Amino acid sequence: MNEIAFWIAPVAALSALVVATRFFREMLAEDQGNARMREIGDHVRHGAMAYLRQQYRLMLLVFALLTALFALLSHGFGLQSTWLPATFVCGGLFSALAGYIGMQTATRAATRTAAAARTSLPQALRIAFRSGAVMGLVVVGLGLGNIVVWFALADWLLPAGEDTGVRMVLVTTTVLTFGMGASMQALFARVGGGIFTKAADVGADLVGKVESGIPEDDPRNPAVIADNVGDNVGDVAGMGADLFESYCGSILAACALGAAAYVGDPTLQIKAVVAPIAIAGLGVLLSILGVFLVRTREGADQRALLGALSRGVNTAAALIIVASAPLLWALGVANPWGIWGAVVSGLLTGIVVGRATEYYTSPSYAPTLHIANQAEGGPATAIIAGIGVGMLSTAVPILAVGAGTLVAFLCASGFDPGALNQGLYGVAIAAVGMLSTLGITLASDAYGPIADNAGGNAEMSGLGPEVRARTDALDALGNTTAATGKGFAIGSAALTALALIASYVEVVRIELIRTGVASLELGHEVVVATAGATLADFMDYFDVTLLNPAVLVAVLLGAMVAFVFSGLTVQAVGRAAGLMVEEVRRQFRTDPGILAGTSEPDYERCVAISTLGAQREMLVPALIAVSAPVAVSLLLGVAGVIGLLVGGLSSGFVLAVFLSNSGGAWDNAKKHIEAGHHGGKNSRAHRASVIGDTVGDPFKDTSGPSLNILVKLMSVVAIVMAGVSTSHSLL
Amino acid sequence: MNEIAFWIAPVAALSALVVATRFFREMLAEDQGNARMREIGDHVRHGAMAYLRQQYRLMLLVFALLTALFALLSHGFGLQSTWLPATFVCGGLFSALAGYIGMQTATRAATRTAAAARTSLPQALRIAFRSGAVMGLVVVGLGLGNIVVWFALADWLLPAGEDTGVRMVLVTTTVLTFGMGASMQALFARVGGGIFTKAADVGADLVGKVESGIPEDDPRNPAVIADNVGDNVGDVAGMGADLFESYCGSILAACALGAAAYVGDPTLQIKAVVAPIAIAGLGVLLSILGVFLVRTREGADQRALLGALSRGVNTAAALIIVASAPLLWALGVANPWGIWGAVVSGLLTGIVVGRATEYYTSPSYAPTLHIANQAEGGPATAIIAGIGVGMLSTAVPILAVGAGTLVAFLCASGFDPGALNQGLYGVAIAAVGMLSTLGITLASDAYGPIADNAGGNAEMSGLGPEVRARTDALDALGNTTAATGKGFAIGSAALTALALIASYVEVVRIELIRTGVASLELGHEVVVATAGATLADFMDYFDVTLLNPAVLVAVLLGAMVAFVFSGLTVQAVGRAAGLMVEEVRRQFRTDPGILAGTSEPDYERCVAISTLGAQREMLVPALIAVSAPVAVSLLLGVAGVIGLLVGGLSSGFVLAVFLSNSGGAWDNAKKHIEAGHHGGKNSRAHRASVIGDTVGDPFKDTSGPSLNILVKLMSVVAIVMAGVSTSHSLL
Repeated sequence: MNEIAFWIAPVAALSALVVATRFFREMLAEDQGNARMREIGDHVRHGAMAYLRQQYRLMLLVFALLTALFALLSHGFGLQSTWLPATFVCGGLFSALAGYIGMQTATRAATRTAAAARTSLPQALRIAFRSGAVMGLVVVGLGLGNIVVWFALADWLLPAGEDTGVRMVLVTTTVLTFGMGASMQALFARVGGGIFTKAADVGADLVGKVESGIPEDDPRNPAVIADNVGDNVGDVAGMGADLFESYCGSILAACALGAAAYVGDPTLQIKAVVAPIAIAGLGVLLSILGVFLVRTREGADQRALLGALSRGVNTAAALIIVASAPLLWALGVANPWGIWGAVVSGLLTGIVVGRATEYYTSPSYAPTLHIANQAEGGPATAIIAGIGVGMLSTAVPILAVGAGTLVAFLCASGFDPGALNQGLYGVAIAAVGMLSTLGITLASDAYGPIADNAGGNAEMSGLGPEVRARTDALDALGNTTAATGKGFAIGSAALTALALIASYVEVVRIELIRTGVASLELGHEVVVATAGATLADFMDYFDVTLLNPAVLVAVLLGAMVAFVFSGLTVQAVGRAAGLMVEEVRRQFRTDPGILAGTSEPDYERCVAISTLGAQREMLVPALIAVSAPVAVSLLLGVAGVIGLLVGGLSSGFVLAVFLSNSGGAWDNAKKHIEAGHHGGKNSRAHRASVIGDTVGDPFKDTSGPSLNILVKLMSVVAIVMAGVSTSHSLL
Repeated sequence: MNEIAFWIAPVAALSALVVATRFFREMLAEDQGNARMREIGDHVRHGAMAYLRQQYRLMLLVFALLTALFALLSHGFGLQSTWLPATFVCGGLFSALAGYIGMQTATRAATRTAAAARTSLPQALRIAFRSGAVMGLVVVGLGLGNIVVWFALADWLLPAGEDTGVRMVLVTTTVLTFGMGASMQALFARVGGGIFTKAADVGADLVGKVESGIPEDDPRNPAVIADNVGDNVGDVAGMGADLFESYCGSILAACALGAAAYVGDPTLQIKAVVAPIAIAGLGVLLSILGVFLVRTREGADQRALLGALSRGVNTAAALIIVASAPLLWALGVANPWGIWGAVVSGLLTGIVVGRATEYYTSPSYAPTLHIANQAEGGPATAIIAGIGVGMLSTAVPILAVGAGTLVAFLCASGFDPGALNQGLYGVAIAAVGMLSTLGITLASDAYGPIADNAGGNAEMSGLGPEVRARTDALDALGNTTAATGKGFAIGSAALTALALIASYVEVVRIELIRTGVASLELGHEVVVATAGATLADFMDYFDVTLLNPAVLVAVLLGAMVAFVFSGLTVQAVGRAAGLMVEEVRRQFRTDPGILAGTSEPDYERCVAISTLGAQREMLVPALIAVSAPVAVSLLLGVAGVIGLLVGGLSSGFVLAVFLSNSGGAWDNAKKHIEAGHHGGKNSRAHRASVIGDTVGDPFKDTSGPSLNILVKLMSVVAIVMAGVSTSHSLL
């Protein structure tokens, strides 16, 4: 990698890790509050670590098995890249490490945020936000750092053949397999975490609030610690792993597609491969700058707090738009303005999707107010209204991603419909552009559960109302950022999946070259075995047209997989919450001292039950996500796999937006009613809205986010198993 | 049409109409019961006719406008077939006529069924079922009769050019536009009817049962007549129009694809065109036979009643499998065994989809029992369980339709992947096979609302408990047939839409030939302007591969349209029901005599309100369904349109199954609890299940069935507007 621009990336990755370390140390030095606060904080941290230990134990088993399988398939049968076992383990390891650091930070930061809130709002915001930034910066730092190291290694170790163009395609598609490990770990973190958090939440509410009549966050509730742990597990570790995967996946896919697009010109090719890495590096540096801009004054209202956060995020985004143009120009990529257009298109798409999510789920706008209004008619009308709002809310995000994709394609292809490869490279670059500010957007996501947990800590420690008011203000801000964060995660997952699907074809191509296309008939052989063959030639060869029945049926199957996967995760929450309800009832029954407040409940057992429930329940959805592309590739071949991925992406993306926004809107409709509208707390409308919120919990925190993983994981599995699908298929 | 087999069709169509007339006369001759029963029956019939008058008035307006537009586009600008205005009007007219006859029969039959139930269960079943058969036979009779007449006309009038092969493609694609009128009328009947029926149902329940505490079907409830009218509007007229469209659409698409598949051999071509018409004719004759087999003895239990119905349906299906083989052999189609395999594949797919629907929605099986069980935890867990069940229930129908499509394709193509045209012809033949028994399956669908209304009539007329027991038995049977009927309607809509999408490409091809492909660049021109060009050449020409960004984005848009359309129809029910609630409250308030039972409520006003609400609310969904394919064809061209249709079909199909099955399962979970389980009526579980049922009402009776129309209508609009999309598109 002789391009100077490439070195922005390692510098940025290192800077991110250094700043994250500094923020972590600063946070540790803060006051932890009184003994009670420390005790509760310790409970949550130990619970979170107990969960992680259990998850990592299961992961270790699954990773060991899969690594052995990959080693066999690659080294034994020659069906996969021999690098796969190493890149696979590495992807999982670093994603898990980022999650571990994020959780360590978040759980420690909550107590210190609550402690700071006793005296100062700006200081509390600073601690919570910078601790969230640890997660954001670690994710981008480790992700980008890994990509840099793997590229350097692959470039150094892979044999230098005659045709450098093909060699770079080989390098990029090899490194692409790094995504498999990240994807697999994201599955555990996001799906398992999603089930954990809602099982704990629903279980705690059903027995605590409904049956026993004790308030939320009451320390007498045995499931309360599990509930607080769940916030971290879902919104810190789960969200982090999801976006770690999108981040790495989009950069790696862009590199692979760049290598393929300029395969005939090694000079332009290397620049096309370096461009996404350099843009990501620039984004990391500007995100760090943005993080430092987030600050506020004492007595700031909600608007001022939101303004402080927005200042950081918007500045980073605006500077990337400005600075990426000279960067691309200096790098000397082919068609720099076109590539820059793709970067901008991706960034703007992310902003539109985030805004649309906010519109549909915030109590400041009509849709959520409509649900609150309909709650006066009872639970049925509240639920029908929420489902209607969620379904309608899919329009803007899908139109935005569709428009962003087309604009990026047109820009990068120089408005030449024949330049399919260049255009698809542009789509991947748009995903990189959207995720370039991840360092700071993820910081505002991870900030949410810290503020939430700080509130819980203040409640359980019995701190005064002025402290609660400060933590409530921080928490409300977190709800807004969480909504936009979810939209951003979904939108970026969709764009990343698109890029991964496009690069799947490149992997198939290199696989055919690698294996000498022994099994292909004459005539076509020449076309597909030549590096100069265009992407269109490949699509022709595999008949990836929409009227190929294998493609049509596979698109249907993809749509079905998205629904079945969601159905399974929805039901998983129900079952796991049932176990939690039984445990809480058992503790109340066997020790009456718990409800009297004289003896402490067994928090750890509740955490363990939620953990085990989550692990057990994620097994079937995970198997479906992994086995669907393998089964389809064996039955319907390459064309079928692409159909499956496109069908799964389209239905999965729309379904994810629907589920997330319905859930978010119900949540905020309930909060709106609790703020005194439509009769306020304990009114008929409130009871109806609580039911809506409970239905929405698994929608927005389990099934919706899990679909992000499904659409990406299926693509990555297809990429990794490309060698198997090209050598064996029935149709 | 010189093939003898062709003449099966007119004979069968005439026979169907003759038998239907006989059944109608027989029904009229039956006893109408006492004065009170006649009075209530008259209210329902007048309400139904008032609804139909209003709907036809609006339709007249829309049809006049669209006919003028089509006349302008075709005769003025030459962008469409000049036949379109005539075929369009005719398709709408005959679909409406079938609906009118069905409603006249159903509303008269309910009183007579109730009257017969006073003395004899077998006689009541006979009246109800044969009156349902009037609808079934009129739909297939008018549908098939029209197709026969149009084919004869087109064959006679269209100029005989030199190339007879291309001429037959022209004939079949011209007749295909007949589907546009049927589709448009189905939109009004199914979407409008779906909104009407649930607005009345929910409105009647919310004020009557919940607020005023009067039982279901109580004559004091002003909305009770509207509710009874709604059953007819939704399940007779709506279902009939939906299946009229599928029936005609599948036959016409098969003819068009047959003409295209054997374009090089005029002898085989005419046989391929006649085959679907002959199979349909055979199916009509065997359906008539099946209808006569449905009879039972006095004191029959639920199992015996279901057995009586199944005997009729299964005999018809088995005989079609047996008799279609010699028919195809005698006709002399190319590859008769392959075509026969496609027929059988379609029939079996329909049976599997119907059974799967029954499994997921019947209280005899685990899924519905699970929901009833979860209702003990309250409304939230009941709703979550129903949504989980509905999502999981998508697996079997989609796998069945996927497998049926592939098998039909492989059989008809003779296992030659290159024979794309022959294979797609097989897929359309499978749809024809599935719908070949429509005469009797639709009879058992239309039977449901008759039995339901008979029960309502018995209740309102104050007949004895032994009469209610008989009508309840008939009603329960109707619920089972309604569930399988819904599955069948969805499955056949999916297969029909697939066939329509495939024939869209043929229409584009003939359009290019017709217009002399003036706007196409040189080089490609030769390929697409020649009749001998294969379907694959066309797909190539328009770049309908899955990595074309226009296709990818259009698939996403299609998925989004399905969700937005559902969201709009869900919300429509909520708003229309709100108007009904206000009206019922107003009547109770202004005339206290109504609740006291001394004065009669104003039933007609409630019917009028539901009618107007339905008309107003269907406007936006209808506009979206019609404008989406036009907009996409202008923006993204032919490839984009195919992407939109495939995306809409895949998401729409899966979403429809989810919505219908969730709704059906909630409904039956409630009935299971009302039968005395989980605490029975007025228990906590019962209250929760009532909320689940209310949420499910618009799912299963409005949004789910409306999606059938959406996926077919978008394809038909694309077909009709093909001339516009090939001559103008931006990308």
